[in-house]
Amino acid sequence: MKIAQIAPLYESIPPKFYGGTERVVSYLTEELVRQGHEVTLFASGDSITNAELISICDKSLRLSDCVDHLSYHFVQMQEVIEQAQRFDVLHFHTDYLHFPISKLLKYPCITTLHGRLDLPDLQFLYKKFSDIPLISISNHQRLPLPFVNWRNTVYHGIPKDFYSLNNNEGKYFAFLGRISPEKRVDTAIEIAKKAGIKIKIAAKIDKVDQLYFDEKIKHLFDDPLVEYIGEINEFEKRAFLANALALLFPIDWPEPFGLVMIEAMANGTPVIAFNRGAVQEVVDHGINGFIVRDVNEALKALNKLHLINRKKCREVFDIRFSSEIMAKNYVRNYEQIIEHNAPKLRYIPNPDRVWISGPPDELNGDLV
Amino acid sequence: MKIAQIAPLYESIPPKFYGGTERVVSYLTEELVRQGHEVTLFASGDSITNAELISICDKSLRLSDCVDHLSYHFVQMQEVIEQAQRFDVLHFHTDYLHFPISKLLKYPCITTLHGRLDLPDLQFLYKKFSDIPLISISNHQRLPLPFVNWRNTVYHGIPKDFYSLNNNEGKYFAFLGRISPEKRVDTAIEIAKKAGIKIKIAAKIDKVDQLYFDEKIKHLFDDPLVEYIGEINEFEKRAFLANALALLFPIDWPEPFGLVMIEAMANGTPVIAFNRGAVQEVVDHGINGFIVRDVNEALKALNKLHLINRKKCREVFDIRFSSEIMAKNYVRNYEQIIEHNAPKLRYIPNPDRVWISGPPDELNGDLV
Repeated sequence: MKIAQIAPLYESIPPKFYGGTERVVSYLTEELVRQGHEVTLFASGDSITNAELISICDKSLRLSDCVDHLSYHFVQMQEVIEQAQRFDVLHFHTDYLHFPISKLLKYPCITTLHGRLDLPDLQFLYKKFSDIPLISISNHQRLPLPFVNWRNTVYHGIPKDFYSLNNNEGKYFAFLGRISPEKRVDTAIEIAKKAGIKIKIAAKIDKVDQLYFDEKIKHLFDDPLVEYIGEINEFEKRAFLANALALLFPIDWPEPFGLVMIEAMANGTPVIAFNRGAVQEVVDHGINGFIVRDVNEALKALNKLHLINRKKCREVFDIRFSSEIMAKNYVRNYEQIIEHNAPKLRYIPNPDRVWISGPPDELNGDLV
Repeated sequence: MKIAQIAPLYESIPPKFYGGTERVVSYLTEELVRQGHEVTLFASGDSITNAELISICDKSLRLSDCVDHLSYHFVQMQEVIEQAQRFDVLHFHTDYLHFPISKLLKYPCITTLHGRLDLPDLQFLYKKFSDIPLISISNHQRLPLPFVNWRNTVYHGIPKDFYSLNNNEGKYFAFLGRISPEKRVDTAIEIAKKAGIKIKIAAKIDKVDQLYFDEKIKHLFDDPLVEYIGEINEFEKRAFLANALALLFPIDWPEPFGLVMIEAMANGTPVIAFNRGAVQEVVDHGINGFIVRDVNEALKALNKLHLINRKKCREVFDIRFSSEIMAKNYVRNYEQIIEHNAPKLRYIPNPDRVWISGPPDELNGDLV
């Protein structure tokens, strides 16, 4: 199948550091290539892929000094339009930036929405574009937009050989992600301190969150149980997750998926997650972690942590969250959307055809 | 002629307060209606017009609590696509938001660019979209993008009855616009203080300029010669400009037009402007104001201010910068773009036609 993957340009594919969407696009692209498809990736020029790379800009926008990010995405969309006929299907990961275009193109297009959808402005947008075929990354993500054209949920996946099972129980809690109010690193620290267990924090601080960090978080890092190791790359992440006792994921927002949970599982590390967003769809309570409602329940779960089998954590990952499974699910959706868009036998009236006793009701023209 | 005007949604048309683009779109729309055209305005629902209003959102985005401004403009573009066939021409004032769409539509489209074009990111964008037919609001505005499809320059215009000549010389300098580094209210104050003449400042402070105001400007307002009167509306503007001795316009950026200069002229008020951007195209040196290079030249110009005839200022406005002239110039451009987009006689091969000695070279098909 000839597949175009259209990625956001903010980070390279895969990203140099943090970037959930870009990581998933990379895993999907490489796995589709591995499965024998002809894949073309529209992305920033510093991306690395076995697919054909259509470079839109030399550097990912986050690393360049560009100001008007949108203008680069418009160039990208125009490039996609110009090359569209090369592909059987166009798979967009670019939020809604292509919606009017994909309606005009009348081409097999499918869109994965990677973000949260509960912002009021989006209601207005999606009511206008309710026919665009969409893939959700969890069933929970769909809740604010029940009226759009959801085709399927496809859970994120990671290559099986990217992480490997560490069967030895770790000595510290891991917190991995962004320092932001919705990720609640303060709650993670509270759990660690009450349990008297060390916590290692690997996290990015975005510019928008700098004030939050300075005012609310920074002083918490002074505790001897807390170790802040900054933003880490993919390779550093392996040991960081594999050697942890558990991943703490005390989120305070409707997390649409939570990639870090399946990364932990891939290393055999169980997850203690607050029951928000997609957590119930990713964590099997008592099997690969615990779903809790607050700090007290998290502390109670710690008493049962020894019952979790790290090998079982990895097994659940293999069965449900490998990139192989993800790619196969996407291909099934591509096939459906191509079938749905295939030109139907159309009835064209033929004025030159002469019928002695008039044409049969459904056959007075040509089927072409 | 059936004309669609597609306006940005940040402010209503016309805007409640500051908003150059929105004001010009309003003047153009109303004048086109007055000249007998069927005009449809795609704008925020709080716009006021004699044209048909297609309301995209109830309130202009600046006055609403929406976060994702772009999503509303995408809804607007989809609405334009769905209604496009109703119009002879689509006139966009929405920057580049419609570029891929207008290429796909293959419809008579024209775009007025209202902003500065010297940002590096725009080079990349406009190289991709170099065929889009564009109108500049001054010749100077074009300089950074010599390679695009400029169709014409159409200068902004204001309705003739909007302001009227005040033949009495005023007692103060007027400064009108935004408090921002490129508008240089500090330079205007310097000129006023050195001349010993009162200056009245009517200006908006955008959020992005608040720090600049607090640190660099606020203390200058303590001078007894300086009177800050905040942001004023269209009606308050009349007396403000009409009663001024001169408008000070000591800009420090490539101003693409400078609407306030023709507003001053319409009241008979001369303009003392720094020689940047479109100033040379708007001010006739010695006729309706003076073009100067710095504060010293501005002070020298003050000595010749009594030579300026306020009636003459208004005359130049009437001849060159009325909305009537602007609308006629646009209609001429609409006609050209419609002509340019008209379906040409196309050559379609006809395999059923039998020629005894072969078809003539240019006539072996049907012209349809």
